[in-house]
Amino acid sequence: MTLPLAVTMGEPAGIGGEIALKAWLQGRADLPPFYLIDDPDRLASLARRLGWPVPIRPIDAPARASAIFVEALPVVPIGMAVRAQPGRPDPGDAQAILGAIQTAVGDVVTGRAAALVTNPIHKDSLYRAGFHHPGHTEYLAELAGVDRPPIMMLVSPGLRVVPVTIHLALRRAIETLSSVAIVDAGRITEAALRRDFGVADPVLAVAGLNPHAGEAGSLGREEIDIIEPALAELRACGMNVRGPLPPDTMFHAEARNAYDAALCMYHDQALIPIKTIDFYGGVNATLGLPFVRTSPDHGTAFAIAGSGTARPDSLIAALRLAAAMGARRSGGS
Amino acid sequence: MTLPLAVTMGEPAGIGGEIALKAWLQGRADLPPFYLIDDPDRLASLARRLGWPVPIRPIDAPARASAIFVEALPVVPIGMAVRAQPGRPDPGDAQAILGAIQTAVGDVVTGRAAALVTNPIHKDSLYRAGFHHPGHTEYLAELAGVDRPPIMMLVSPGLRVVPVTIHLALRRAIETLSSVAIVDAGRITEAALRRDFGVADPVLAVAGLNPHAGEAGSLGREEIDIIEPALAELRACGMNVRGPLPPDTMFHAEARNAYDAALCMYHDQALIPIKTIDFYGGVNATLGLPFVRTSPDHGTAFAIAGSGTARPDSLIAALRLAAAMGARRSGGS
Repeated sequence: MTLPLAVTMGEPAGIGGEIALKAWLQGRADLPPFYLIDDPDRLASLARRLGWPVPIRPIDAPARASAIFVEALPVVPIGMAVRAQPGRPDPGDAQAILGAIQTAVGDVVTGRAAALVTNPIHKDSLYRAGFHHPGHTEYLAELAGVDRPPIMMLVSPGLRVVPVTIHLALRRAIETLSSVAIVDAGRITEAALRRDFGVADPVLAVAGLNPHAGEAGSLGREEIDIIEPALAELRACGMNVRGPLPPDTMFHAEARNAYDAALCMYHDQALIPIKTIDFYGGVNATLGLPFVRTSPDHGTAFAIAGSGTARPDSLIAALRLAAAMGARRSGGS
Repeated sequence: MTLPLAVTMGEPAGIGGEIALKAWLQGRADLPPFYLIDDPDRLASLARRLGWPVPIRPIDAPARASAIFVEALPVVPIGMAVRAQPGRPDPGDAQAILGAIQTAVGDVVTGRAAALVTNPIHKDSLYRAGFHHPGHTEYLAELAGVDRPPIMMLVSPGLRVVPVTIHLALRRAIETLSSVAIVDAGRITEAALRRDFGVADPVLAVAGLNPHAGEAGSLGREEIDIIEPALAELRACGMNVRGPLPPDTMFHAEARNAYDAALCMYHDQALIPIKTIDFYGGVNATLGLPFVRTSPDHGTAFAIAGSGTARPDSLIAALRLAAAMGARRSGGS
């Protein structure tokens, strides 16, 4: 029996519950089996209110999830009732939200789940409850006992991008950019391409920071001072690395065919191209954790939560990618 | 008889000549009539070497160009022989290159040409010959007697973008960004949308500078300190302006439908989305000049010059856009 995927509740005031219901409804016949770690009562009432025929089946352990997945949506209960209403987060839910993540990590670490798929959280509600991590991913790294910050990869059918700096003001991102960070991101990305994505000889494309990749220094020196030394180090390790490339001409269809992942120097350099190409189906994969973790590439979407209109495309893509990565990592395919 | 478009030679070591020949060969039946300002002998020998049946017809003034366009490619001679070979620029051509631009500007200013389309130049060859302008566009502005720097708009079928800062290192672009520059770009863009693009009630989308448009200051303050005051000023003039928007979610197909042009804060924020969507067909339109000027959105491409493989898509799109803008400006359509 296939090992199921563990899917966290995320922020219950957001769209996590309804996209999971919709994913099951649309895809139960051919999706990789998964179970939610959530409040079964709130999911049942959500399904009822939306008029969606999704039988909710509480289970006490992941082992039964795959067997029942075609008939019902398996849910490992979080053990407490959720207080939030759609669009209205409640700080009282912080413990349940974090508990679902802890349970899911326990399940993947002990081999009861094939991989982890996380629904979006809302950091503000958690901060007020004492959560002190900059984000979801850093929290997972701590739970997993990993020191170095994990790497975020965004994946869509035609493009994989890795931002070397992420949630920083653009000015700060430039100040923070370092050869060490580029080398780290390059190594982790290359290893993940081989192990999790089945790419035999990965080619990395590395973007410049400046227009035209700096034009030999006349439009900025970061390519010369920071990026090129990092590329030299990656090449010295035997990696196939191209760059620094002019950022504006590396993301069109023909250019994308020439590499397996693009290393980008700042958030929007990575996210503008991938969200322009594929706004609904992008997936966030975390590299550098001891387990496979993906998540939909969107937030809690409070404004439409509870309406049933949120598209499950990204969650579905996150489930498929997690299953494929998990299978490769375990040698299953 | 339709007023013809004036097309400059550009750098003769680049692909300007062959894309003009190819555009005529592929499109003479339905392209807006144009004439080149170039060396007829080098064009005839280029056509002969490539085996392309393009009759070159020297003319002494633009007036005859439209009438003969279907039978031959009209060329107003630059009055000297070009020295460059494909891929090998020659500083001795600087005077001819600049002379072609001066002639073309004279033609549009005096109403002998409907609009100006410029082939790419190679600034390095010109600098050595004493050219002191940061670029083509600034040179045109000087020839036209315009004080303020013109605005660059990139146009493809589904998207128009205007970078507020252009050829600057990213760090410098952030330091240089000002409310005044955003207001200027917004006003000139809105006026051009009405006059040259036939948009009755233009909607401008304005990008933030930082990830997530700064998240209310936590990821950078430029949205609050620089961009929002500029938008307030534009709104006070009655303009329909949206923003500052998160840069990564404003360029996908659905988002693009909600505005007529996007104002971007730096080069790659504008050029990454448009070149990702439409790498070959983008056109550069210069706004804020007393005449219509477009150019293909690529460089001299020395590496493939003379091979006949360069695609004329962008020049063809530049010709069509120049004709449409010129017709609107003269009230002709």
